[in-house]
This record gives sequence, structure tokens and C-alpha cells, in this order.
Amino acid sequence: MAGFSTATTVRRVGDDEYLADLDPLWSIGTKPNGGYLLATMTRAALDVAGPGYPHPGAVSAHFLSAPAAGPVQIRVQPLRQGRSVAQLRTSLYAAGEHCVEALVSCGTLPAAGPARWDGVPAVELPAEEDCLLLPGETPWFPVPLMTVLAQRLDPATAGFTTGRGAGAGEIRAWLRFADGSEPDPLGLLVAADCLPPATFDLDLVGSWVPTLELTVYVRAVPVPGPLRVRLKVRLITEGRVDEQCDVWDNAGTLVATGHQLAALRLPEAPTNATAGAAVAAAD
Amino acid sequence: MAGFSTATTVRRVGDDEYLADLDPLWSIGTKPNGGYLLATMTRAALDVAGPGYPHPGAVSAHFLSAPAAGPVQIRVQPLRQGRSVAQLRTSLYAAGEHCVEALVSCGTLPAAGPARWDGVPAVELPAEEDCLLLPGETPWFPVPLMTVLAQRLDPATAGFTTGRGAGAGEIRAWLRFADGSEPDPLGLLVAADCLPPATFDLDLVGSWVPTLELTVYVRAVPVPGPLRVRLKVRLITEGRVDEQCDVWDNAGTLVATGHQLAALRLPEAPTNATAGAAVAAAD
Repeated sequence: MAGFSTATTVRRVGDDEYLADLDPLWSIGTKPNGGYLLATMTRAALDVAGPGYPHPGAVSAHFLSAPAAGPVQIRVQPLRQGRSVAQLRTSLYAAGEHCVEALVSCGTLPAAGPARWDGVPAVELPAEEDCLLLPGETPWFPVPLMTVLAQRLDPATAGFTTGRGAGAGEIRAWLRFADGSEPDPLGLLVAADCLPPATFDLDLVGSWVPTLELTVYVRAVPVPGPLRVRLKVRLITEGRVDEQCDVWDNAGTLVATGHQLAALRLPEAPTNATAGAAVAAAD
Repeated sequence: MAGFSTATTVRRVGDDEYLADLDPLWSIGTKPNGGYLLATMTRAALDVAGPGYPHPGAVSAHFLSAPAAGPVQIRVQPLRQGRSVAQLRTSLYAAGEHCVEALVSCGTLPAAGPARWDGVPAVELPAEEDCLLLPGETPWFPVPLMTVLAQRLDPATAGFTTGRGAGAGEIRAWLRFADGSEPDPLGLLVAADCLPPATFDLDLVGSWVPTLELTVYVRAVPVPGPLRVRLKVRLITEGRVDEQCDVWDNAGTLVATGHQLAALRLPEAPTNATAGAAVAAAD
């Protein structure tokens, strides 16, 4: 199995020009995961930034068009190199089409440890072995991403897998790389965008939630061990949903936070008796 | 007084090239407010996008260098024009220096009204007349922004003005344009980045909190009347703070949310007995 590090490899082919080969395993259906795209692009940005700026700090991406797995081109343009922060513009192209545009701020993260002030209490999860390992297949399409990421869902938020969400708009899970590698700051970009859509907990199962914008703040270098991830719906308006994702390392340090605005496309026909019910009731 | 609409005027001078004259009133100290820069840049982006995409949806900015008030150049590059969303890259330059890079997704927002699903209970505030109007002067530097924006703080979060924050890392306020104009979607970009830093409520008063990254999601066209704004610190690590800002319109609809990652620079010397105390205690 190609692990995260191999799957996000970039090869420099010119001044600030890179090639990558997107691994189909890091996909939902046939579409590479947004966090995976972000991590691959950011790896190229870090290479251009150089050893003085080893970690991503803030990465903001707008998704223009979903690339297929396979070869892509990444162009990086340095915007500013400061004392502690470098900022770069990063563009991903597939078959000549501009697919993702991302702005990357990078520098040196603190080691994980107690924050100076923390306003986000750590998520509580049942023991990992009491959580539900998500399979790589769903009733709608395969999710090969679940074969490279081991996601173990808190049973309290896994109701959607049997047709009845809890209605809280929240998914909580333990997360590990399936190949046994440990999380690093680049991996946190994936961690912040890999759980099933939290809309599923509202019985919008089978909806397609393509990301329009994703911003991830990476706050500390995680310690080894499983990550804890909580994804929450904040607001659903007509055709749009925004979600917030917090990621803690195995020591309980909040190491990354992602925010995304996504389109919300309901299934053509309800895929089970409850699909769409929560939204109809909330209208 | 130059109102928001005048202060954010952009003048097209070439293909996707604009000039603007940043108004010194929309500043904190001598530095134009980040939300004001975002609104001015987004006005140019909307002009390029055209009438089919009248409103900002998601705007993500990385701040490279703080421009002074005065003339600036804005360059817009369309990235993609979809059926309902246009996406553009926008760059702001002052005296030839690249100061801000922003990605803008725009389209047509829904009118304000009940959300399909809302996971963010509306902030509760005392009556507007019982709140504290922030002055345009502070003990550290003038804040002319407060002369063009009327910010009335919930007294429960205004403790920092007399030397003792509540310690919750939260600032809540009523907000109006001082010239009496009503909020519009562009104005929400300012609303999501104009309150005093929520770190002040942690007695980090006098700290300088320059924004590194700011993303705003605009979710609906606000109804007329004052806005309600809540800014919360999420996490403070070594030299970095991230804050989340929610904005509701006068009907109680959540109309915008901002997230920002900022540097946290403590004052050279404590400016009052409590400065820095909260952080020292939390270490």
C-alpha cells in the first residue's frame, strides 16, 4: 500500500514547477480527496520555501474543478519571504486544466504541548476499539480513502451508517494512517478534511458535498499516535453548507482546525426513508 | 464622512486592473483594517466577475505586508467561471509592493431568512443603548475605524476597557456603519474583522495582533438594521492566535463567519498591571 508520504510525493521539473501522480486510493468515489490535494500542493510549496520554513501554518484553497487521479502539474509562486513566515501561491493543473488554487503560509510550528490558552475543549471519544471502522465501500460508491486512512467513528455519530443520524450535525472519529505511519503537519491537512460529511448525521446521507473553499490552520507538530477528529456542521443554507473540523493529537493538543464551505447536492432520489427528512423538518 | 461604499470604490484602469484610494479612517492606528482591504479587493473581483455573480461567497486572504492608506493597485485574474460560481485571484499592491493576495468565490446569495439547518445559536446581547460605544482613541494609538463603524460592546465583554477582561476570550457587539448606510454582503467582510482582538478579553490588552490569514464566508444578504457580532479566541499557541467571528443580521440570521490566524505580539512593557497575566497563568 502506498502510504501518505509516497502518495504526496512531488518531483521538481523546473523553476517552481512540480509533477505529482495522484494516487487513486486517496479518493472518494473517483475524486481525489480535497485534503489530499492540499497536502500534495503544500509539499511543493514547502520545497520552494526551503528548509527555513518547514511546516504549513495556514493553507487556503479554492477548488475550481475536481481532477482525476493520475498525473498533475503544480506551479508555485513565492509571494513573500519574511523572517518567520513564507507565503506562496500554489496552482494545481490536470491535463492543462486549472483545478485548485491554494495560498500557503509556512514557517516553524511549535512542538505539541499545552497551548497558551485553549478555548476548544478536547473532544471525548469512546476507546478506539469500541468505535466503528469505516469500510472502503458505501451503498453509493466506493471510498478508497477509507482503505488508506483508518477512521473509527464514535458509535454515537455513526447512526447514518444504519439509516438514522443523531441529528446533531457532528461526526467524531479516531484517525490513523492505515500503513502505520505517524501523523505529521502535512498529514494534518488531510485529517482536517477526510471524515464523512457531517451532513450525514442530519440524514442527508448520499448527498454529494463538493468543497468550494477549504482553509486549514496547522497549530503544532503532533505527537505519534492516533488523531482525534471532530467535524461539525455550522450552517446549511440553500445549496451551501459550512463545516468546522478540529483535530487533536494523541496527547490531547489541538493541532489543526479546518473550515470549509461546500455545495450541498441532495441525491436525485432519496436513498433511504429518512434522506432529506431533517432538512425538510428544519425549513 | 466617507461611508463604506465610497471608501471601497475601485476604478477600472485596464484589463482586470483597478486603482483604489484607501481611506485612512478605515484604519487601526495607521494600518488599514484587514476586512476593509478584503472588501475593496472583493469589489474589484465582483466587477470582473460581472452581474451574474453579484455577491461574495468565500473570500480567503493572506496578508503579506500592511499597506498605508492612500493609492493602491488591484489586479484581478479570473480563474474559473461556472454556472453559479465564479472564482478569481485578487492581488493588492501599494507603491509596487505586493501587500495582500486573496482568492474570491462569488455568486448569488440567498436572501436572509431562516437557514435550512443552523448549528450556531444566535448571540444574545443587551439592548443596543445599554452597550458601550467604542471611542476612536485608545491609550496606545488612535483607532479611526471606530469613527466610521459604530461598535457597541456588550458590557460583559468590555472589561478590557477598564483594565480587567472577563477571561473568556470573547468580544460581543452591536455594529452599524456610522454614516447610517445599511449593511450589504461586501460590508459583511468588514463586519467579520473589525472588533477589538478577543485576546483583549484575556487581558492581553495592548498586544498587536496582525492578521496572517483571514477567510470569510458570506452566507446571506443581510436585512437592514444593526449587525450582531461575536468574536472568539479559539487557540493561542506560541506567537499565534486563531479567532472565529460570527455575524448575525437584525433578523437573527447568521449572515457571515470569519476565521483568522494572526500573530500575537505582546506589548514591549506591560501597559497595565494585568497585561500578560492570563497567559502566564495558563502556561
